[in-house]
Amino acid sequence: MIFAKVIGTVVSTQKDPKLTGKKLLLCKETDHSGKPLDTYHVAVDAVQAGEGDFVLLTYGSAARMTDLTKDAPIDAVIMAVIDEVTIEQEISVTPEQVRPKGME
Amino acid sequence: MIFAKVIGTVVSTQKDPKLTGKKLLLCKETDHSGKPLDTYHVAVDAVQAGEGDFVLLTYGSAARMTDLTKDAPIDAVIMAVIDEVTIEQEISVTPEQVRPKGME
Amino acid sequence: MIFAKVIGTVVSTQKDPKLTGKKLLLCKETDHSGKPLDTYHVAVDAVQAGEGDFVLLTYGSAARMTDLTKDAPIDAVIMAVIDEVTIEQEISVTPEQVRPKGME
Amino acid sequence: MIFAKVIGTVVSTQKDPKLTGKKLLLCKETDHSGKPLDTYHVAVDAVQAGEGDFVLLTYGSAARMTDLTKDAPIDAVIMAVIDEVTIEQEISVTPEQVRPKGME
Amino acid sequence: MIFAKVIGTVVSTQKDPKLTGKKLLLCKETDHSGKPLDTYHVAVDAVQAGEGDFVLLTYGSAARMTDLTKDAPIDAVIMAVIDEVTIEQEISVTPEQVRPKGME
Repeated sequence: MIFAKVIGTVVSTQKDPKLTGKKLLLCKETDHSGKPLDTYHVAVDAVQAGEGDFVLLTYGSAARMTDLTKDAPIDAVIMAVIDEVTIEQEISVTPEQVRPKGME
Repeated sequence: MIFAKVIGTVVSTQKDPKLTGKKLLLCKETDHSGKPLDTYHVAVDAVQAGEGDFVLLTYGSAARMTDLTKDAPIDAVIMAVIDEVTIEQEISVTPEQVRPKGME
Repeated sequence: MIFAKVIGTVVSTQKDPKLTGKKLLLCKETDHSGKPLDTYHVAVDAVQAGEGDFVLLTYGSAARMTDLTKDAPIDAVIMAVIDEVTIEQEISVTPEQVRPKGME
Repeated sequence: MIFAKVIGTVVSTQKDPKLTGKKLLLCKETDHSGKPLDTYHVAVDAVQAGEGDFVLLTYGSAARMTDLTKDAPIDAVIMAVIDEVTIEQEISVTPEQVRPKGME
Repeated sequence: MIFAKVIGTVVSTQKDPKLTGKKLLLCKETDHSGKPLDTYHVAVDAVQAGEGDFVLLTYGSAARMTDLTKDAPIDAVIMAVIDEVTIEQEISVTPEQVRPKGME
Protein backbone atom coordinates (compact mmCIF):
# COMPACT_ATOMS: atom_id res chain seq x y z
CA MET A 1 0.00 0.00 0.00
CA ILE A 2 1.09 3.56 -0.59
CA PHE A 3 0.98 6.61 1.68
CA ALA A 4 -0.50 9.70 0.06
CA LYS A 5 -2.30 12.97 0.67
CA VAL A 6 -5.43 13.97 -1.19
CA ILE A 7 -4.80 17.22 -3.04
CA GLY A 8 -7.48 17.51 -5.70
CA THR A 9 -10.10 16.00 -7.96
CA VAL A 10 -10.22 14.69 -11.52
CA VAL A 11 -13.43 15.29 -13.46
CA SER A 12 -14.45 13.27 -16.52
CA THR A 13 -17.71 13.18 -18.46
CA GLN A 14 -16.68 10.92 -21.37
CA LYS A 15 -15.84 7.75 -19.47
CA ASP A 16 -16.57 4.06 -19.04
CA PRO A 17 -20.11 3.59 -17.62
CA LYS A 18 -18.71 1.69 -14.61
CA LEU A 19 -16.96 4.86 -13.46
CA THR A 20 -20.25 6.68 -12.94
CA GLY A 21 -20.72 7.74 -9.32
CA LYS A 22 -17.11 7.16 -8.40
CA LYS A 23 -15.01 10.10 -7.24
CA LEU A 24 -11.54 10.26 -8.77
CA LEU A 25 -9.08 11.94 -6.41
CA LEU A 26 -5.66 13.32 -7.21
CA CYS A 27 -3.18 12.27 -4.54
CA LYS A 28 0.42 13.05 -3.88
CA GLU A 29 2.53 10.22 -2.57
CA THR A 30 4.14 10.84 0.81
CA ASP A 31 6.54 9.00 3.04
CA HIS A 32 5.32 7.36 6.25
CA SER A 33 5.44 10.68 8.09
CA GLY A 34 3.26 12.42 5.53
CA LYS A 35 6.13 14.32 3.92
CA PRO A 36 5.29 14.80 0.22
CA LEU A 37 7.25 12.96 -2.46
CA ASP A 38 7.37 13.59 -6.21
CA THR A 39 4.82 11.04 -7.42
CA TYR A 40 1.14 11.73 -8.12
CA HIS A 41 -1.63 9.11 -8.13
CA VAL A 42 -5.23 9.12 -9.32
CA ALA A 43 -7.42 6.81 -7.26
CA VAL A 44 -11.09 6.17 -6.65
CA ASP A 45 -12.23 7.20 -3.19
CA ALA A 46 -13.91 4.36 -1.28
CA VAL A 47 -13.83 5.90 2.20
CA GLN A 48 -15.07 9.48 1.72
CA ALA A 49 -11.62 10.96 2.07
CA GLY A 50 -11.38 14.72 1.98
CA GLU A 51 -8.88 17.26 0.70
CA GLY A 52 -5.71 17.14 2.74
CA ASP A 53 -6.39 13.74 4.26
CA PHE A 54 -3.45 11.40 4.86
CA VAL A 55 -4.55 8.14 3.23
CA LEU A 56 -3.55 4.67 2.11
CA LEU A 57 -3.90 3.61 -1.53
CA THR A 58 -3.93 0.08 -2.79
CA TYR A 59 -3.06 -0.82 -6.39
CA GLY A 60 -3.94 -3.55 -8.84
CA SER A 61 -6.81 -6.00 -8.61
CA ALA A 62 -7.06 -5.06 -4.91
CA ALA A 63 -8.57 -1.76 -6.04
CA ARG A 64 -11.72 -3.61 -7.07
CA MET A 65 -12.24 -5.33 -3.72
CA THR A 66 -14.42 -2.61 -2.18
CA ASP A 67 -18.19 -2.67 -2.67
CA LEU A 68 -17.98 0.62 -4.55
CA THR A 69 -15.31 -0.42 -7.02
CA LYS A 70 -16.26 -4.03 -7.82
CA ASP A 71 -15.68 -4.79 -11.53
CA ALA A 72 -14.75 -1.19 -12.40
CA PRO A 73 -11.86 -0.44 -14.80
CA ILE A 74 -9.65 1.13 -12.13
CA ASP A 75 -6.31 0.12 -10.68
CA ALA A 76 -6.07 2.29 -7.56
CA VAL A 77 -8.38 2.96 -4.64
CA ILE A 78 -8.19 4.90 -1.39
CA MET A 79 -9.26 2.37 1.22
CA ALA A 80 -8.19 3.98 4.51
CA VAL A 81 -7.70 7.39 6.08
CA ILE A 82 -4.71 7.20 8.40
CA ASP A 83 -5.02 8.23 12.05
CA GLU A 84 -1.48 7.54 13.08
CA VAL A 85 1.74 5.86 12.04
CA THR A 86 3.78 4.60 14.96
CA ILE A 87 7.38 3.60 14.55
CA GLU A 88 8.76 1.54 17.38
CA GLN A 89 12.03 0.50 15.85
CA GLU A 90 13.45 2.94 13.33
CA ILE A 91 16.22 1.66 11.13
CA SER A 92 18.51 4.17 9.52
CA VAL A 93 18.81 4.17 5.77
CA THR A 94 22.56 4.37 6.17
CA PRO A 95 23.50 0.76 6.95
CA GLU A 96 27.00 1.68 8.09
CA GLN A 97 25.59 3.63 11.02
CA VAL A 98 23.39 0.90 12.41
CA ARG A 99 23.61 -2.63 13.62
CA PRO A 100 19.99 -3.76 13.41
CA LYS A 101 18.80 -6.02 16.19
CA GLY A 102 19.16 -9.67 15.32
CA MET A 103 21.48 -8.92 12.41
CA GLU A 104 24.82 -8.82 14.27
CA MET B 1 -4.30 5.48 -13.03
CA ILE B 2 -2.01 7.39 -15.35
CA PHE B 3 -2.43 10.77 -17.03
CA ALA B 4 -1.64 10.77 -20.75
CA LYS B 5 -2.32 12.43 -24.07
CA VAL B 6 -3.28 10.51 -27.18
CA ILE B 7 -0.71 11.13 -29.90
CA GLY B 8 -1.08 8.36 -32.45
CA THR B 9 -2.23 4.91 -33.44
CA VAL B 10 -0.68 1.44 -33.61
CA VAL B 11 -1.77 -0.80 -36.48
CA SER B 12 -1.41 -4.58 -36.45
CA THR B 13 -2.76 -7.24 -38.83
CA GLN B 14 -1.01 -10.32 -37.41
CA LYS B 15 -2.50 -10.38 -33.91
CA ASP B 16 -4.47 -12.35 -31.38
CA PRO B 17 -8.09 -12.76 -32.56
CA LYS B 18 -9.40 -11.08 -29.40
CA LEU B 19 -7.74 -7.82 -30.48
CA THR B 20 -9.95 -7.56 -33.56
CA GLY B 21 -12.06 -4.41 -33.50
CA LYS B 22 -10.05 -2.78 -30.75
CA LYS B 23 -8.21 0.47 -31.47
CA LEU B 24 -4.67 0.61 -30.12
CA LEU B 25 -3.65 4.16 -29.30
CA LEU B 26 -0.18 5.53 -28.68
CA CYS B 27 -0.20 7.80 -25.66
CA LYS B 28 2.38 9.97 -24.03
CA GLU B 29 2.32 10.11 -20.27
CA THR B 30 1.79 13.56 -18.77
CA ASP B 31 1.71 15.05 -15.32
CA HIS B 32 -1.57 16.13 -13.76
CA SER B 33 -1.49 19.41 -15.66
CA GLY B 34 -1.11 17.70 -19.01
CA LYS B 35 2.58 18.52 -19.36
CA PRO B 36 4.24 15.72 -21.36
CA LEU B 37 6.67 13.34 -19.68
CA ASP B 38 9.13 10.90 -21.26
CA THR B 39 7.10 7.69 -21.12
CA TYR B 40 4.95 6.29 -23.92
CA HIS B 41 2.06 3.86 -23.47
CA VAL B 42 0.03 1.72 -25.86
CA ALA B 43 -3.54 1.25 -24.69
CA VAL B 44 -6.86 0.08 -26.08
CA ASP B 45 -9.38 2.87 -26.43
CA ALA B 46 -12.65 2.15 -24.61
CA VAL B 47 -14.10 5.67 -24.67
CA GLN B 48 -13.62 6.90 -28.25
CA ALA B 49 -10.75 9.15 -27.33
CA GLY B 50 -9.35 11.27 -30.11
CA GLU B 51 -5.92 12.58 -31.06
CA GLY B 52 -4.75 15.15 -28.53
CA ASP B 53 -7.21 14.17 -25.85
CA PHE B 54 -6.08 14.33 -22.23
CA VAL B 55 -7.00 10.90 -20.84
CA LEU B 56 -6.71 8.46 -17.96
CA LEU B 57 -5.22 5.00 -18.49
CA THR B 58 -5.64 2.06 -16.19
CA TYR B 59 -3.20 -0.86 -16.11
CA GLY B 60 -3.32 -4.54 -15.26
CA SER B 61 -6.39 -6.71 -14.95
CA ALA B 62 -8.40 -3.48 -14.65
CA ALA B 63 -7.84 -3.01 -18.38
CA ARG B 64 -10.20 -5.90 -19.06
CA MET B 65 -13.07 -4.52 -16.99
CA THR B 66 -14.72 -2.59 -19.83
CA ASP B 67 -17.30 -4.28 -22.05
CA LEU B 68 -15.03 -3.81 -25.06
CA THR B 69 -11.91 -5.33 -23.52
CA LYS B 70 -13.31 -8.27 -21.51
CA ASP B 71 -10.98 -11.31 -21.75
CA ALA B 72 -8.63 -9.64 -24.25
CA PRO B 73 -4.84 -10.02 -23.95
CA ILE B 74 -4.22 -6.38 -23.09
CA ASP B 75 -2.86 -4.69 -19.98
CA ALA B 76 -3.78 -1.04 -20.55
CA VAL B 77 -7.00 0.74 -21.47
CA ILE B 78 -8.12 4.35 -21.84
CA MET B 79 -11.23 4.54 -19.69
CA ALA B 80 -11.82 8.29 -19.30
CA VAL B 81 -11.26 11.56 -21.14
CA ILE B 82 -10.39 14.23 -18.61
CA ASP B 83 -12.40 17.45 -18.42
CA GLU B 84 -10.55 19.06 -15.60
CA VAL B 85 -8.06 18.45 -12.82
CA THR B 86 -8.59 20.66 -9.80
CA ILE B 87 -5.95 21.03 -7.13
CA GLU B 88 -7.17 22.51 -3.90
CA GLN B 89 -4.13 21.89 -1.76
CA GLU B 90 -0.87 21.82 -3.65
CA ILE B 91 2.13 20.38 -1.87
CA SER B 92 5.55 21.29 -3.16
CA VAL B 93 7.89 18.50 -4.18
CA THR B 94 10.68 20.26 -2.31
CA PRO B 95 9.89 19.48 1.32
CA GLU B 96 12.51 21.83 2.67
CA GLN B 97 10.80 24.82 1.11
CA VAL B 98 7.32 24.12 2.35
CA ARG B 99 5.44 23.50 5.50
CA PRO B 100 2.43 21.61 4.17
CA LYS B 101 -0.86 22.30 5.93
CA GLY B 102 -1.45 19.80 8.67
CA MET B 103 2.18 18.71 8.70
CA GLU B 104 3.62 21.40 10.99
CA MET C 1 1.70 -2.77 -23.69
CA ILE C 2 5.38 -2.67 -24.57
CA PHE C 3 7.11 -2.21 -27.93
CA ALA C 4 9.86 -4.74 -28.63
CA LYS C 5 11.81 -6.56 -31.32
CA VAL C 6 12.27 -10.31 -31.34
CA ILE C 7 15.97 -11.12 -31.21
CA GLY C 8 16.29 -14.72 -30.07
CA THR C 9 14.91 -17.79 -28.39
CA VAL C 10 15.05 -19.32 -24.91
CA VAL C 11 15.19 -23.11 -24.70
CA SER C 12 14.23 -25.09 -21.60
CA THR C 13 13.73 -28.82 -21.06
CA GLN C 14 13.24 -28.88 -17.27
CA LYS C 15 10.09 -26.77 -16.98
CA ASP C 16 6.51 -26.64 -15.80
CA PRO C 17 4.34 -29.00 -17.90
CA LYS C 18 2.07 -26.13 -18.95
CA LEU C 19 4.99 -24.55 -20.82
CA THR C 20 5.21 -27.48 -23.23
CA GLY C 21 4.60 -26.43 -26.81
CA LYS C 22 5.03 -22.76 -26.09
CA LYS C 23 7.84 -20.85 -27.76
CA LEU C 24 9.77 -18.53 -25.45
CA LEU C 25 11.20 -15.57 -27.34
CA LEU C 26 13.88 -13.14 -26.23
CA CYS C 27 12.84 -9.59 -27.06
CA LYS C 28 14.52 -6.28 -26.76
CA GLU C 29 12.34 -3.37 -25.75
CA THR C 30 12.17 -0.51 -28.24
CA ASP C 31 10.59 2.90 -28.35
CA HIS C 32 7.56 3.55 -30.56
CA SER C 33 9.77 3.97 -33.62
CA GLY C 34 11.46 0.62 -33.10
CA LYS C 35 14.68 2.10 -31.77
CA PRO C 36 16.20 -0.41 -29.31
CA LEU C 37 16.30 0.38 -25.60
CA ASP C 38 18.28 -1.33 -22.84
CA THR C 39 15.65 -3.70 -21.45
CA TYR C 40 15.21 -7.35 -22.44
CA HIS C 41 12.00 -9.36 -22.08
CA VAL C 42 11.19 -13.06 -22.33
CA ALA C 43 7.68 -13.68 -23.62
CA VAL C 44 5.63 -16.53 -25.03
CA ASP C 45 4.83 -16.11 -28.70
CA ALA C 46 1.09 -16.26 -29.42
CA VAL C 47 1.15 -14.84 -32.96
CA GLN C 48 3.96 -16.71 -34.72
CA ALA C 49 6.32 -13.77 -34.55
CA GLY C 50 9.66 -14.19 -36.25
CA GLU C 51 13.18 -13.00 -35.60
CA GLY C 52 13.44 -9.26 -36.12
CA ASP C 53 9.71 -8.63 -35.93
CA PHE C 54 8.51 -5.40 -34.31
CA VAL C 55 5.93 -6.59 -31.78
CA LEU C 56 3.71 -5.68 -28.85
CA LEU C 57 4.02 -7.48 -25.52
CA THR C 58 1.45 -7.53 -22.80
CA TYR C 59 2.30 -8.25 -19.15
CA GLY C 60 0.55 -9.71 -16.15
CA SER C 61 -2.64 -11.75 -16.10
CA ALA C 62 -3.28 -10.42 -19.63
CA ALA C 63 -0.55 -12.78 -20.82
CA ARG C 64 -2.86 -15.72 -20.16
CA MET C 65 -5.76 -14.37 -22.20
CA THR C 66 -4.75 -16.01 -25.48
CA ASP C 67 -5.94 -19.53 -26.33
CA LEU C 68 -2.34 -20.74 -26.34
CA THR C 69 -1.38 -19.35 -22.94
CA LYS C 70 -4.53 -19.96 -20.87
CA ASP C 71 -3.60 -21.03 -17.29
CA ALA C 72 0.14 -21.18 -18.02
CA PRO C 73 2.69 -19.85 -15.49
CA ILE C 74 3.82 -16.96 -17.66
CA ASP C 75 3.58 -13.21 -17.23
CA ALA C 76 4.38 -11.92 -20.72
CA VAL C 77 3.06 -12.73 -24.19
CA ILE C 78 3.58 -11.38 -27.70
CA MET C 79 0.06 -10.72 -28.94
CA ALA C 80 0.60 -8.55 -32.02
CA VAL C 81 3.12 -7.93 -34.77
CA ILE C 82 3.15 -4.22 -35.55
CA ASP C 83 2.56 -2.99 -39.09
CA GLU C 84 2.83 0.68 -38.41
CA VAL C 85 2.90 3.31 -35.69
CA THR C 86 1.45 6.64 -36.75
CA ILE C 87 2.00 9.77 -34.73
CA GLU C 88 -0.32 12.62 -35.56
CA GLN C 89 0.50 14.94 -32.72
CA GLU C 90 4.02 14.67 -31.39
CA ILE C 91 4.72 16.23 -28.04
CA SER C 92 8.30 17.07 -27.21
CA VAL C 93 9.80 15.57 -24.09
CA THR C 94 11.19 18.99 -23.25
CA PRO C 95 8.17 20.79 -21.83
CA GLU C 96 9.85 24.19 -21.96
CA GLN C 97 10.00 24.04 -25.73
CA VAL C 98 6.39 23.22 -26.36
CA ARG C 99 2.96 24.53 -25.64
CA PRO C 100 0.85 21.44 -26.19
CA LYS C 101 -2.53 22.02 -27.87
CA GLY C 102 -5.27 22.53 -25.37
CA MET C 103 -2.81 23.15 -22.53
CA GLU C 104 -2.21 26.89 -23.06
CA MET D 1 8.70 -11.66 -2.62
CA ILE D 2 10.41 -8.88 -0.73
CA PHE D 3 12.64 -8.95 2.35
CA ALA D 4 11.66 -6.47 5.05
CA LYS D 5 11.77 -5.71 8.76
CA VAL D 6 8.72 -4.73 10.75
CA ILE D 7 9.26 -1.29 12.28
CA GLY D 8 5.85 0.06 13.21
CA THR D 9 2.10 0.11 12.85
CA VAL D 10 -0.44 2.06 10.84
CA VAL D 11 -3.74 2.88 12.54
CA SER D 12 -6.91 3.77 10.66
CA THR D 13 -10.50 4.17 11.87
CA GLN D 14 -12.12 5.48 8.67
CA LYS D 15 -11.51 2.51 6.37
CA ASP D 16 -13.08 -0.10 4.13
CA PRO D 17 -15.10 -2.58 6.25
CA LYS D 18 -13.03 -5.51 4.96
CA LEU D 19 -9.96 -4.08 6.70
CA THR D 20 -11.52 -4.51 10.13
CA GLY D 21 -9.49 -6.84 12.31
CA LYS D 22 -6.46 -6.72 10.07
CA LYS D 23 -3.21 -5.30 11.45
CA LEU D 24 -1.40 -2.93 9.11
CA LEU D 25 2.34 -3.01 9.70
CA LEU D 26 4.94 -0.54 8.53
CA CYS D 27 7.94 -2.38 7.13
CA LYS D 28 11.29 -1.28 5.86
CA GLU D 29 12.65 -3.20 2.90
CA THR D 30 15.98 -4.94 3.47
CA ASP D 31 18.40 -6.88 1.38
CA HIS D 32 18.73 -10.67 1.82
CA SER D 33 20.98 -10.20 4.84
CA GLY D 34 18.49 -7.96 6.62
CA LYS D 35 20.39 -4.76 5.93
CA PRO D 36 17.85 -1.91 5.65
CA LEU D 37 17.19 -0.25 2.30
CA ASP D 38 15.40 3.03 1.56
CA THR D 39 11.94 1.71 0.70
CA TYR D 40 9.00 1.45 3.11
CA HIS D 41 6.02 -0.87 2.73
CA VAL D 42 2.64 -1.11 4.43
CA ALA D 43 1.36 -4.69 4.60
CA VAL D 44 -1.28 -6.68 6.42
CA ASP D 45 0.17 -9.14 8.92
CA ALA D 46 -1.00 -12.71 8.32
CA VAL D 47 1.55 -14.50 10.52
CA GLN D 48 1.58 -12.55 13.78
CA ALA D 49 4.87 -10.88 13.02
CA GLY D 50 6.29 -8.65 15.74
CA GLU D 51 8.28 -5.46 15.81
CA GLY D 52 11.80 -6.06 14.51
CA ASP D 53 10.98 -9.34 12.80
CA PHE D 54 12.73 -10.14 9.53
CA VAL D 55 9.88 -11.05 7.19
CA LEU D 56 8.81 -11.82 3.64
CA LEU D 57 6.13 -9.73 1.91
CA THR D 58 4.20 -10.73 -1.13
CA TYR D 59 2.52 -8.21 -3.44
CA GLY D 60 -0.46 -8.13 -5.75
CA SER D 61 -3.34 -10.59 -5.87
CA ALA D 62 -1.11 -12.97 -3.87
CA ALA D 63 -1.75 -10.76 -0.86
CA ARG D 64 -5.33 -12.01 -0.76
CA MET D 65 -4.43 -15.70 -0.73
CA THR D 66 -4.27 -16.05 3.06
CA ASP D 67 -7.39 -16.94 5.05
CA LEU D 68 -7.16 -13.60 6.84
CA THR D 69 -6.92 -11.43 3.75
CA LYS D 70 -9.32 -13.13 1.32
CA ASP D 71 -11.22 -10.51 -0.75
CA ALA D 72 -9.79 -7.53 1.18
CA PRO D 73 -8.69 -4.37 -0.67
CA ILE D 74 -5.01 -4.83 0.07
CA ASP D 75 -2.01 -5.44 -2.18
CA ALA D 76 0.66 -6.54 0.29
CA VAL D 77 0.80 -9.15 3.03
CA ILE D 78 3.43 -10.50 5.40
CA MET D 79 3.22 -14.26 4.89
CA ALA D 80 6.44 -15.53 6.52
CA VAL D 81 8.87 -14.69 9.31
CA ILE D 82 12.35 -15.60 8.15
CA ASP D 83 14.52 -17.93 10.21
CA GLU D 84 17.53 -17.96 7.99
CA VAL D 85 18.79 -17.07 4.53
CA THR D 86 21.55 -19.34 3.30
CA ILE D 87 23.68 -18.42 0.33
CA GLU D 88 25.63 -21.29 -1.14
CA GLN D 89 26.88 -19.62 -4.26
CA GLU D 90 27.34 -15.89 -4.01
CA ILE D 91 27.70 -13.99 -7.22
CA SER D 92 29.31 -10.58 -7.08
CA VAL D 93 27.38 -7.64 -8.40
CA THR D 94 30.50 -6.55 -10.26
CA PRO D 95 30.52 -8.83 -13.29
CA GLU D 96 34.07 -7.93 -14.21
CA GLN D 97 35.35 -9.50 -10.99
CA VAL D 98 33.64 -12.84 -11.36
CA ARG D 99 33.37 -15.68 -13.78
CA PRO D 100 30.17 -17.36 -12.64
CA LYS D 101 30.09 -21.15 -12.81
CA GLY D 102 28.76 -22.38 -16.10
CA MET D 103 29.08 -18.97 -17.73
CA GLU D 104 32.72 -19.21 -18.92
CA MET E 1 9.76 -13.36 -17.27
CA ILE E 2 13.06 -12.71 -15.55
CA PHE E 3 16.46 -14.38 -15.95
CA ALA E 4 18.10 -15.37 -12.68
CA LYS E 5 20.54 -17.75 -11.02
CA VAL E 6 19.69 -19.71 -7.91
CA ILE E 7 22.13 -18.79 -5.14
CA GLY E 8 20.57 -19.86 -1.86
CA THR E 9 17.57 -20.77 0.22
CA VAL E 10 15.18 -18.96 2.56
CA VAL E 11 13.94 -20.87 5.61
CA SER E 12 10.79 -19.96 7.53
CA THR E 13 8.90 -21.81 10.27
CA GLN E 14 6.33 -19.15 11.21
CA LYS E 15 4.48 -18.85 7.90
CA ASP E 16 1.16 -19.09 6.14
CA PRO E 17 -0.02 -22.73 6.07
CA LYS E 18 -0.19 -22.71 2.27
CA LEU E 19 3.58 -22.25 2.13
CA THR E 20 4.19 -25.62 3.75
CA GLY E 21 6.16 -27.95 1.49
CA LYS E 22 7.23 -25.19 -0.86
CA LYS E 23 10.92 -24.42 -1.24
CA LEU E 24 11.78 -20.71 -1.20
CA LEU E 25 14.90 -20.00 -3.24
CA LEU E 26 17.04 -16.89 -3.24
CA CYS E 27 17.87 -15.89 -6.79
CA LYS E 28 20.03 -13.22 -8.29
CA GLU E 29 18.73 -11.59 -11.43
CA THR E 30 20.96 -11.92 -14.49
CA ASP E 31 20.93 -10.63 -18.03
CA HIS E 32 20.14 -12.97 -20.92
CA SER E 33 23.70 -14.27 -20.94
CA GLY E 34 23.61 -15.20 -17.26
CA LYS E 35 25.73 -12.25 -16.14
CA PRO E 36 24.63 -11.28 -12.61
CA LEU E 37 22.80 -8.02 -12.02
CA ASP E 38 22.16 -6.19 -8.73
CA THR E 39 18.62 -7.39 -7.99
CA TYR E 40 17.71 -10.33 -5.75
CA HIS E 41 14.45 -12.30 -5.91
CA VAL E 42 12.80 -14.82 -3.60
CA ALA E 43 10.72 -17.35 -5.52
CA VAL E 44 9.07 -20.71 -4.93
CA ASP E 45 10.73 -23.53 -6.86
CA ALA E 46 8.30 -25.43 -9.08
CA VAL E 47 10.84 -27.29 -11.22
CA GLN E 48 13.37 -28.69 -8.75
CA ALA E 49 15.98 -26.12 -9.62
CA GLY E 50 19.34 -26.48 -7.92
CA GLU E 51 21.98 -24.11 -6.63
CA GLY E 52 23.67 -22.33 -9.51
CA ASP E 53 20.97 -23.11 -12.06
CA PHE E 54 20.17 -20.52 -14.69
CA VAL E 55 16.39 -20.14 -14.46
CA LEU E 56 13.32 -18.20 -15.51
CA LEU E 57 11.05 -16.58 -12.92
CA THR E 58 7.54 -15.43 -13.50
CA TYR E 59 5.84 -12.80 -11.33
CA GLY E 60 2.31 -11.94 -10.28
CA SER E 61 -0.75 -14.14 -10.50
CA ALA E 62 1.23 -16.28 -12.98
CA ALA E 63 3.21 -17.56 -9.99
CA ARG E 64 0.15 -19.48 -8.85
CA MET E 65 -0.42 -21.28 -12.14
CA THR E 66 1.72 -24.33 -11.32
CA ASP E 67 0.20 -27.35 -9.58
CA LEU E 68 2.51 -26.77 -6.62
CA THR E 69 1.70 -23.12 -6.09
CA LYS E 70 -2.06 -22.98 -6.76
CA ASP E 71 -3.76 -20.55 -4.31
CA ALA E 72 -0.58 -19.90 -2.29
CA PRO E 73 0.28 -16.36 -1.10
CA ILE E 74 3.32 -16.01 -3.36
CA ASP E 75 4.10 -13.66 -6.23
CA ALA E 76 7.12 -15.32 -7.84
CA VAL E 77 7.88 -18.83 -9.04
CA ILE E 78 10.73 -20.55 -10.86
CA MET E 79 9.02 -22.33 -13.74
CA ALA E 80 11.91 -23.25 -16.05
CA VAL E 81 15.59 -24.13 -15.96
CA ILE E 82 17.24 -22.63 -19.02
CA ASP E 83 19.24 -24.82 -21.40
CA GLU E 84 20.22 -22.15 -23.83
CA VAL E 85 19.54 -18.61 -24.96
CA THR E 86 20.13 -18.07 -28.65
CA ILE E 87 20.36 -14.59 -30.12
CA GLU E 88 20.00 -14.45 -33.87
CA GLN E 89 19.73 -10.72 -34.32
CA GLU E 90 21.48 -8.63 -31.71
CA ILE E 91 20.55 -5.00 -31.55
CA SER E 92 23.01 -2.61 -29.98
CA VAL E 93 21.85 -0.50 -27.09
CA THR E 94 23.47 2.48 -28.76
CA PRO E 95 20.88 3.46 -31.35
CA GLU E 96 23.25 5.79 -33.19
CA GLN E 97 25.40 2.85 -34.20
CA VAL E 98 22.68 0.70 -35.68
CA ARG E 99 20.02 0.86 -38.31
CA PRO E 100 17.70 -1.95 -37.26
CA LYS E 101 16.23 -4.03 -40.08
CA GLY E 102 12.88 -2.69 -41.20
CA MET E 103 13.42 0.62 -39.43
CA GLU E 104 15.33 2.47 -42.21
